[in-house]
Amino acid sequence: MTQRSPLAPAAFPALPAIAGVTARAARARYKNWDRCDLTYVELAEGTTVAGVTTQSRCPSPEVEWCRDAIPLGSARALVVNAGNANAFTGHRGRAAVEAIAAKVANHLDCKPSDIFISSTGVIGVPLPVDKAEAGLEAAFTAVPCSWEDAATTIGTTDTYAKGAHAAAMIGGTRVELVGIIKGSGMIAPDMATMLGYIFTDAAIDARLLQQMLSAANRQSFSCITVDSDTSTSDTVLAFATGQAGNAPLATMDDAGADAFAAALGDLCRQLAHLVVRDGEGASKFIEIVVEGAETDASAHRIALSIANSPLVKTAIAGEDANWGRVVMAVGKAGEPADRDKLSIRFGATQVASGGLALEGYDEAPVAAHLKGQDIEIGVDLGLGNGRATVWTCDLTHGYISINADYRS
Amino acid sequence: MTQRSPLAPAAFPALPAIAGVTARAARARYKNWDRCDLTYVELAEGTTVAGVTTQSRCPSPEVEWCRDAIPLGSARALVVNAGNANAFTGHRGRAAVEAIAAKVANHLDCKPSDIFISSTGVIGVPLPVDKAEAGLEAAFTAVPCSWEDAATTIGTTDTYAKGAHAAAMIGGTRVELVGIIKGSGMIAPDMATMLGYIFTDAAIDARLLQQMLSAANRQSFSCITVDSDTSTSDTVLAFATGQAGNAPLATMDDAGADAFAAALGDLCRQLAHLVVRDGEGASKFIEIVVEGAETDASAHRIALSIANSPLVKTAIAGEDANWGRVVMAVGKAGEPADRDKLSIRFGATQVASGGLALEGYDEAPVAAHLKGQDIEIGVDLGLGNGRATVWTCDLTHGYISINADYRS
Repeated sequence: MTQRSPLAPAAFPALPAIAGVTARAARARYKNWDRCDLTYVELAEGTTVAGVTTQSRCPSPEVEWCRDAIPLGSARALVVNAGNANAFTGHRGRAAVEAIAAKVANHLDCKPSDIFISSTGVIGVPLPVDKAEAGLEAAFTAVPCSWEDAATTIGTTDTYAKGAHAAAMIGGTRVELVGIIKGSGMIAPDMATMLGYIFTDAAIDARLLQQMLSAANRQSFSCITVDSDTSTSDTVLAFATGQAGNAPLATMDDAGADAFAAALGDLCRQLAHLVVRDGEGASKFIEIVVEGAETDASAHRIALSIANSPLVKTAIAGEDANWGRVVMAVGKAGEPADRDKLSIRFGATQVASGGLALEGYDEAPVAAHLKGQDIEIGVDLGLGNGRATVWTCDLTHGYISINADYRS
Repeated sequence: MTQRSPLAPAAFPALPAIAGVTARAARARYKNWDRCDLTYVELAEGTTVAGVTTQSRCPSPEVEWCRDAIPLGSARALVVNAGNANAFTGHRGRAAVEAIAAKVANHLDCKPSDIFISSTGVIGVPLPVDKAEAGLEAAFTAVPCSWEDAATTIGTTDTYAKGAHAAAMIGGTRVELVGIIKGSGMIAPDMATMLGYIFTDAAIDARLLQQMLSAANRQSFSCITVDSDTSTSDTVLAFATGQAGNAPLATMDDAGADAFAAALGDLCRQLAHLVVRDGEGASKFIEIVVEGAETDASAHRIALSIANSPLVKTAIAGEDANWGRVVMAVGKAGEPADRDKLSIRFGATQVASGGLALEGYDEAPVAAHLKGQDIEIGVDLGLGNGRATVWTCDLTHGYISINADYRS
């Protein structure tokens, strides 16, 4: 790992074990490196699964595999390969995925569709089946590893291992949720896909888990952007082992379902923020809050237009309260907006309101806010009740260095 | 002007005078600088006009003024202010535009709607009417200036003056077209709006001119992107004085209409390329050709997705034949695409085809191509006959320096 992001948390958090989940790491040597690069997570019988994947029209065969397996609702293992994305590799890439699933299914005596697989790394090189199989053999007999080891092993260009924790009460039973995630740019340099995995000991029906994960995703992973680019491999999976002994959740009306959904949402938001905080070259974490839009969906598109604007992102990097660039980004979003009703703030300070720059606003708190690491841009469109929040990072020389001063 | 773009032409071209067009430049001193910053162009009676403006939902009052005046079809003068965009300035900004139009209309004894106005520069500061009026007084009596002087005077962060020329035969009469344009980023740093003006001595009905300009715009200004950001003030206007003496063009069926439309298209493409070649921090001019899409519109959206991808743009800056990033950008466009039918080339060399990296392709010509200043990326989707071409530049440390290492 290269120099730790200045926005990284102080340390990897203390995460509890999840009953029914055992992680192991091994060296498949997908690249010429001496580090663990294959993560193998065994899941107890009866584990349910849900997932969300990239919107890319050109996904990796791993994503296609997961898209097919998720609706079946059951899982027994997860395999994550780091160093080779296996994307754009045709039938050979697909064959590698099938070989991994078959080998693990044979080991666990389960269906291949119970095996979930992700790969991240270089594009266009078929995943070498021999290395994967040797790596799996080593993993099957390895001692279990810590969450931090697993989070490190799934990483590629990440500058720090990312994990988070949440808990909820279902009836009188406490359930734990642990998540690990990797990702820094979108696929840059060729290998910074976002892959996230959530493990819980709660007993929950797969369809309900999917409903909750999809909702949480809309408020977390779908609300972050580093550079507007979308990986061919982005995947988030949630596994529920049911070992906590709670009364199984089957519908949102069940006691504790709200609490579990809230904990899942909290965990997803924590994980999403950890990815943005490792954005390539990032020096500022930016929260963009859009209010007063015609609809929530409209607010979301306007917020992403601001978050993806190179001019806004470079202004924040330069600690410049350049609200004109925010106006520009609102205008280009193509959503309903009325210039003369628009208000903009940096932190808590209004800088423009009702279509006019606020003359003589106090620049001192704005300058102080922009010198910090956590920046908030607020936009009120003054049209309706639609609102959305998204998170991004600034655009710096570091991003260019990582992505241009590099050869594939 | 700062250091000339490495992609700039060797010199400003020799451009002919256009009968019925007289340009003058003056010092309005919109900023604390000693340069001409007000361009005043007088147009002969009978001049017709057409125009296209930004798609921004938050346009400047100048854009709103032009949008209202263009359909009326007649023009007597153009005023361009550099140094203050007058955008996001509420009723005071609108009043400044009305004051300029009234003053020039009074001078020329014409309707205010015959006066076309653009402003470019800092956002949020109402254009000072007193400076505009004093500048106009000076311009009314100034000696006429050259095309190069006019092109320089409308510029802000441009690193070179931009002009181009085309000609066409209408019946037996030769008509001339001259264009000047300014723009380098979109509005960065606060003042790099694209403003383009085309002048011709052809006699042509305003509605036909609008039809031709809209068509030319779709193949030129709508096909360029520097950083995906959209100015609040982008405007292209075409003025036809009718002094060449050709049989007036009124429909596309008239003799010479095709030739004129072709010349206008050629001129617009030249002008659009000049803007990309002054893209902030640009070191490479990139042509992206998408073929085999389901429709032309789909091809256009895919081409823009590639052109706006920071990862593709940084790869080209790094002279890296990183076709995986091109696949990513195709996939994220949200348009019909089949990974296994996709082919990609850099210059004339195929690097990936039918969903697979081409093993052992000759890297030497690809490396040589990427070392040049003019880069071509070709994508064949293998689905249909839709095609589109767009132009952009690479993303370099220079872009960050210009936009982040700057205070508004």
